[in-house]
Amino acid sequence: MTAAPTDRLKLAVLINASGSHIAGWRHPRSGAEQTDELSHYLQIAKKAEAGKFDIVFFADSSALFDGTPEHQARYSHGLAATEPKRHLEPFTLLAALSAGTSNIGLVGSATTTYAEPYSVARVVASLDRLSGGRGGWNLITSANPAEASNFNRTHHLDHATRYERAEEFVDVVRGLWDTLGDGAYVRNREQGVYSDLTQISALNFQGKHFQVSGPLNILRPPQGHPLIAQAGSSEPGRRLAARTADMVFTAQRDIQAAKEFRADIRARTRAAGRNPDHVLVVPGLVPYVGETHQDAHDFYHELLSLIVPDAGLALLAELVGEIDLRSYPLDGPVPEFGETQGSVSRLRLIEQLTHTTRPTIRILYESIAGASGHGFIIGSPVEIADYIEEWYRQGAVDGFNILPPVSPFAFDRFVDLVVPELQRRGLVQSAYRPGSLRDKLGLPRPKNSLLS
Amino acid sequence: MTAAPTDRLKLAVLINASGSHIAGWRHPRSGAEQTDELSHYLQIAKKAEAGKFDIVFFADSSALFDGTPEHQARYSHGLAATEPKRHLEPFTLLAALSAGTSNIGLVGSATTTYAEPYSVARVVASLDRLSGGRGGWNLITSANPAEASNFNRTHHLDHATRYERAEEFVDVVRGLWDTLGDGAYVRNREQGVYSDLTQISALNFQGKHFQVSGPLNILRPPQGHPLIAQAGSSEPGRRLAARTADMVFTAQRDIQAAKEFRADIRARTRAAGRNPDHVLVVPGLVPYVGETHQDAHDFYHELLSLIVPDAGLALLAELVGEIDLRSYPLDGPVPEFGETQGSVSRLRLIEQLTHTTRPTIRILYESIAGASGHGFIIGSPVEIADYIEEWYRQGAVDGFNILPPVSPFAFDRFVDLVVPELQRRGLVQSAYRPGSLRDKLGLPRPKNSLLS
Ligand SMILES: Cc1cc2nc3c(=O)[nH]c(=O)nc-3n(C[C@H](O)[C@H](O)[C@H](O)COP(=O)(O)O)c2cc1C
Ligand SMILES: Cc1cc2nc3c(=O)[nH]c(=O)nc-3n(C[C@H](O)[C@H](O)[C@H](O)COP(=O)(O)O)c2cc1C
Repeated sequence: MTAAPTDRLKLAVLINASGSHIAGWRHPRSGAEQTDELSHYLQIAKKAEAGKFDIVFFADSSALFDGTPEHQARYSHGLAATEPKRHLEPFTLLAALSAGTSNIGLVGSATTTYAEPYSVARVVASLDRLSGGRGGWNLITSANPAEASNFNRTHHLDHATRYERAEEFVDVVRGLWDTLGDGAYVRNREQGVYSDLTQISALNFQGKHFQVSGPLNILRPPQGHPLIAQAGSSEPGRRLAARTADMVFTAQRDIQAAKEFRADIRARTRAAGRNPDHVLVVPGLVPYVGETHQDAHDFYHELLSLIVPDAGLALLAELVGEIDLRSYPLDGPVPEFGETQGSVSRLRLIEQLTHTTRPTIRILYESIAGASGHGFIIGSPVEIADYIEEWYRQGAVDGFNILPPVSPFAFDRFVDLVVPELQRRGLVQSAYRPGSLRDKLGLPRPKNSLLS
Repeated sequence: MTAAPTDRLKLAVLINASGSHIAGWRHPRSGAEQTDELSHYLQIAKKAEAGKFDIVFFADSSALFDGTPEHQARYSHGLAATEPKRHLEPFTLLAALSAGTSNIGLVGSATTTYAEPYSVARVVASLDRLSGGRGGWNLITSANPAEASNFNRTHHLDHATRYERAEEFVDVVRGLWDTLGDGAYVRNREQGVYSDLTQISALNFQGKHFQVSGPLNILRPPQGHPLIAQAGSSEPGRRLAARTADMVFTAQRDIQAAKEFRADIRARTRAAGRNPDHVLVVPGLVPYVGETHQDAHDFYHELLSLIVPDAGLALLAELVGEIDLRSYPLDGPVPEFGETQGSVSRLRLIEQLTHTTRPTIRILYESIAGASGHGFIIGSPVEIADYIEEWYRQGAVDGFNILPPVSPFAFDRFVDLVVPELQRRGLVQSAYRPGSLRDKLGLPRPKNSLLS
């Protein structure tokens, strides 16, 4: 089941405010003061383009902090020490970035739980058009329960309902993208014919959650369908990805588990009647790059020393549910905890971690503070390239979604030091291919399901 | 009640695809082939900035064509001849335009009927931030009944309910903009304090239509509140505008009616406890500019000759409700028609027109084809400047929202020929003031209602 590596390793960068490390913002070379400004993100996107990255990617949530309102109240001191990871809205930001870049893919997250498919289809199609075929949508089901209370609900939709809704949502979105054929607007000035009505179709979707007639009021996107990414790792998450995703983001800390995950996604994709090479599995990776091994470890420990304990506890609070860790000693062992409605897969990660090593609370938050459950690697450029090459050659990944612990500093280091090493080894591209994001990634342009 | 003119006339441009005239796209110098591309809109926005315009403005709807699906089916041939007026989604487009402009205000329409206030608050705040304080929201209640079926509804919400929802919606949006104080993010690296929690507040809005806890996950916008524009002219529309709007778009064909409208808005604004100078009344104006009087009339008649009759009938279908005009002779009189749930104020405009002149169907659509109910003026630069000056001096307007009948051609003419004449007369600005859009317009930055 483990496939031979695809033609080259893909690289995305997830721009997480001034860094994915919880104390990243405190680092002297973070851009913490600039995270409300376009310039911060443009600098990173341009750097990514200089490094021939495939994609800049924005995660999202529709609430200021993660967790339920009760958590937030309990951990308010921790929240004061933590940078909220969202500053600008993803699609307006990506649209602005499209004007300052020319090759990199622009992928934003939008929730199927609290948004409307007509609006998402339209915004993503508009981004695809504005960027000349570089747009994409990361389909999220809303990991953050605090979003519910911003959208007229007292409770977050449960996991099963979120995925049921997501299944319909993506069908509506893809259907709407097909309601206008590529040649719908003929614009024949002489004859006074603007539209070819045979190239415009209603959708008339009648589902349990959505009833949407269409057509969409924007021409079919340049890519046919903008790239669809997904990040669910649960059973229904994998099922949805296998049926509909072009790219799967995932958190994988262990190469063997990653191989199994990728093999599973590929098998499911084949079972869904699709070519498994058309689903790219791209785990997150937090690289602590140093000029030398020692330099990298110094950087990592510098960041650990910057963690405010309350912020560390608040970080754990998102993940351990109802337990108030402040009543336990910081340097004592992590207590047991049960299941939640939230992120099943993340919980499992922590459980694995606590069962294998029995860490203290401080060590647990330190290990999570740097990578939010993703794999991380501390090392020299060669060490990091070795790690990446190993995962790739073993068929554990099609690429990585790089989460710089400190932005822009740690990303600059990755592009300046690691990317040339990867290019030297022929693992990543040294120049962009022409065409749309799909063309560059070797993914086909979807056929129109409604019109021929 | 009629006030002295404010310090200068304001100018906005409504970018309506390749022209607000129904046959504008057929004109040899329209940009019809470019309306899916950023470049088309950027060219117009830059021209507007060259002419020291205050605002570029995008109308919106969330359906491909106007009217109910039944209308659309009946008038399909007419639709084939008509340019759909939306090509790109307003806020992604405005965000992209923000990167290519530096002074002009960027105002997009978003509906209170089919959107969520948390999302609208966030997108508009993001635009305001990306543009350095030039963002604005035109609050619309969805004039187009076809939107309903794209948002899980079998019927459009009725007029009264739309405005009831709009009243709550705008309160939620403005409240959310106030949930983070201007100084919420202190970013004290040394002490590890990112946020000042006393500058972050919940909203906890509990209304009939919306329950939204907040806070918003974006810093308070540079303008405090981005500009709020509105375009309802009915009783509830005026009430809402008087309470909440900074700018009122309106369709006015008659100077006396416009004076009364502006006086009414100002009186209501004062009654709502606000300074009437802080609500700018800006009717639409479709200018047919020629180098000479004759040249302008030739241009106007050239456009009339380009109207496909079916497109003219489809245009009337939006406005006359259930009557199928195709069963009446094109050069016979317009039949009687009743009220609809739709745009009450537009219907009244047509009734006035039909009662005073008893036009034929062809003449009715010709008179509407060029201006969609707005005032229009055909003339030389001096004639058009005279018209504008007259309306302004008489206190009928604070400015005009220019709807070029053909874009970019007719807008270029307006900027090149009419604006210098207006500047020479000291009616409009010849240079931008520094600061935000509110600063440039002389509008105050709203105080924070939740935090001091
Ligand atoms: C790499 C990665 C990125 C994610 N990005 C987001 C995000 O931007 N917003 C969000 O609400 N959830 C995000 N999630 C959470 C998933 O969308 C999903 O809700 C969560 O993993 C629970 O679903 P599951 O049980 O299928 O894994 C992300 C998850 C992963 C692994
Ligand atoms: C100048 C002007 C611009 C408008 N722009 C929009 C728009 O972009 N989208 C929309 O749905 N309605 C638009 N409308 C319609 C109004 O939002 C409103 O729905 C309509 O005027 C009916 O409300 P009323 O009865 O209060 O006038 C516009 C109206 C006017 C006069």
